[in-house]
Amino acid sequence: MRDLMLCKRKKRQPFNKIEAWQLLSRRKAFTALPWVKVYVDRIRLPSGRVISDFYAIDLPEFVLIYAQARNGKVLCQSQYHYADDKTGLSLPAGCLEKKESPLEAAKREFREETGYMAQTWKFIGSYCVDSRRGCGKAHLFTAKGLKKISRPLTDEMEEGDIFFIPPSRLIEAVMRGEVISLAVAFLISLATNPSLAKGGSKL
Amino acid sequence: MRDLMLCKRKKRQPFNKIEAWQLLSRRKAFTALPWVKVYVDRIRLPSGRVISDFYAIDLPEFVLIYAQARNGKVLCQSQYHYADDKTGLSLPAGCLEKKESPLEAAKREFREETGYMAQTWKFIGSYCVDSRRGCGKAHLFTAKGLKKISRPLTDEMEEGDIFFIPPSRLIEAVMRGEVISLAVAFLISLATNPSLAKGGSKL
Repeated sequence: MRDLMLCKRKKRQPFNKIEAWQLLSRRKAFTALPWVKVYVDRIRLPSGRVISDFYAIDLPEFVLIYAQARNGKVLCQSQYHYADDKTGLSLPAGCLEKKESPLEAAKREFREETGYMAQTWKFIGSYCVDSRRGCGKAHLFTAKGLKKISRPLTDEMEEGDIFFIPPSRLIEAVMRGEVISLAVAFLISLATNPSLAKGGSKL
Repeated sequence: MRDLMLCKRKKRQPFNKIEAWQLLSRRKAFTALPWVKVYVDRIRLPSGRVISDFYAIDLPEFVLIYAQARNGKVLCQSQYHYADDKTGLSLPAGCLEKKESPLEAAKREFREETGYMAQTWKFIGSYCVDSRRGCGKAHLFTAKGLKKISRPLTDEMEEGDIFFIPPSRLIEAVMRGEVISLAVAFLISLATNPSLAKGGSKL
């Protein structure tokens, strides 16, 4: 038991590094391209024990955008979430296309889904959706200085309204359980957290 | 385009409800119990279009706990995240056992992983890890009034230090990318968000 030592910006990972699991072999267990790949990995734990069937799941990477208009309101969407069979409050999002960087995907998806462009973009971070099995990677962005340039391109699998909400109302929606996606709930909670002003790299 | 109408606590989902996708049939595409199930669903979109191969993924439900000692510091763990091959800052977590409620699982996992008990528990919310495909459900809790009652039970797949960090330092760790799990990053961002004091139901 110990308190975390004071850590400066450059001193990353102030906690003890844990020995990695060793991947001994990997085989495809299930594939449904381009959506899902399941691997069964044979791994060796730091203790020496071998696990012969650890399942890792590969899903497409996606971007998610918290975009504020000049009046501070945030561009939101209502979205149907199949996994929960519910409509939830969401943010513009979409999958990376081949050879596209997360920022390129964020700009393209934002323009296509909302009809807006943004002047400044800030990269917040990339996260494995499930830190053990994988389940895809979420690349999170904030954007400012919005300008309407076209109509949204409709996609019948991503159908939903577009509207603007003040940040204070948005975090209340997270508290009330109106945000169903973990990634969306995270980005809203972080973007409305006063600490964010200190971090993040402007792109 | 419209602003969100002022919504009171009892008026849930102030945004338009979107018509649900209709599940026409489901078959198991891949099963590795108790870890992974992949279903292939035949669904009808609101437009009438039928998708014959929408993949839904079932992973175990888990709990995650943001527990504060009387001095306000938060009980953290360092944890190896296989999906990213990195050690990250994490919070006590674990899977639900059969017939266990999320709160029961949270109390059990917390005691087993840390050797602590907590006096008060607050349920924050349940989230699909992936709001389209599923990938398990995360049940989030905060806890206060910690009391050490035993040694942690070691689990060689969840090996890691236990230590306490002030909330301000914890949200900084999220900003610096030292938190790898999306669910952990979300719970920290929400718990350190001043708005949380207003919401959540005490258990």
